[in-house]
Amino acid sequence: MVQLVKVQNFNVSRDGFGAGSDQSLEHPFGHADPTIMFAWAGATASWPNRTDPGGSRGLDDYFTRDFANNIGAEIMGRNKFSPHRGPWTDHDWLGWWGDEPPFHTPVFVMTHHLRPSFTLSDTTFHFVDAEPAEVLDRAKRAADGKDVRLGGGAATIRQFLDADLVDTMHVAVSDIELGAGSQLWRSPDEFDDRFHHEVVPSPSGVTHHLLWRR
Amino acid sequence: MVQLVKVQNFNVSRDGFGAGSDQSLEHPFGHADPTIMFAWAGATASWPNRTDPGGSRGLDDYFTRDFANNIGAEIMGRNKFSPHRGPWTDHDWLGWWGDEPPFHTPVFVMTHHLRPSFTLSDTTFHFVDAEPAEVLDRAKRAADGKDVRLGGGAATIRQFLDADLVDTMHVAVSDIELGAGSQLWRSPDEFDDRFHHEVVPSPSGVTHHLLWRR
Repeated sequence: MVQLVKVQNFNVSRDGFGAGSDQSLEHPFGHADPTIMFAWAGATASWPNRTDPGGSRGLDDYFTRDFANNIGAEIMGRNKFSPHRGPWTDHDWLGWWGDEPPFHTPVFVMTHHLRPSFTLSDTTFHFVDAEPAEVLDRAKRAADGKDVRLGGGAATIRQFLDADLVDTMHVAVSDIELGAGSQLWRSPDEFDDRFHHEVVPSPSGVTHHLLWRR
Repeated sequence: MVQLVKVQNFNVSRDGFGAGSDQSLEHPFGHADPTIMFAWAGATASWPNRTDPGGSRGLDDYFTRDFANNIGAEIMGRNKFSPHRGPWTDHDWLGWWGDEPPFHTPVFVMTHHLRPSFTLSDTTFHFVDAEPAEVLDRAKRAADGKDVRLGGGAATIRQFLDADLVDTMHVAVSDIELGAGSQLWRSPDEFDDRFHHEVVPSPSGVTHHLLWRR
């Protein structure tokens, strides 16, 4: 059974930045406003953090509800997990997501600064100091035959792209400019030698880019 | 928990026909060529009847793989189930789909000609002679909290639309004309008073129409 490595619902600005500069506890996406970046998903009926009923059931909802489809593990970079840099001073930080993280699978956090695994609800975080291929090997074993989501940030996705380990990418491009930060690409066309590439403008204003390995 | 009534991956021609005229055992879609009507789905990686690996993983694949997502029952018309008309002469006909029908849930076939339920693999077919609201009530109870797919044909979907029982519709419009047969709509805009309506052209050439209740 083929286990795919998938980038899903990753958001970038028109100039390719997945997050702004100067990440902090108060600003997980740096100078980028996540409510603008994720507006397309937040407006859908399937958005997991909805507080009211309703929401759109058009194109954007397909992408939102596909997020967990056949995913058995996630890999993320340390900066997606935490605003801290360097060695851990304690292990109090348990991620941005509260008691119910949205992953519901094992999560592998790539970092040079190891710490013990821990579990919140049905998500277990593991910390690994290894090259992409080795981390992927661990994630695939943990995924129980299902696919592996590559959750970002942009630098982590780039590492896997450079190692040619990515099978599919869904990247939503919001109509804002960031100018600086963590950049996924200069142009969404730069992988066209290796990936099929569909550009799907959504009625909501976001543009979905779908890439899959040639 | 809300149980939606959904039309999913229903195919029509540019002039709104879901099937051609003169359905028969040899021609389940009458004079319409199903290999043209369904070409967009058949080209995707998630198409359940693939005989080779590969297939596209772009926009059309999202729709194809969403077909079974949270669906707990299907309702179909008698003409989707069978080329026969009038009373059953025997109960030998078990549908077009062989030993492994693609539904994997209870299926409710609307017909004035009842016959005993039967099971093939994980699909059980029930036969009901009742109005849409009553059939839907039975399907919702059988769906175990999940959504109900309204599988067609066009006349059956129209009955549910006329009774205002449809929550969402995904209809794929192929770039062919049929001129006659079983018609879903004269224009996809004719429900715009009751439904939000997104038109999403796919790079494959098919146009996806997404409608959801206002």
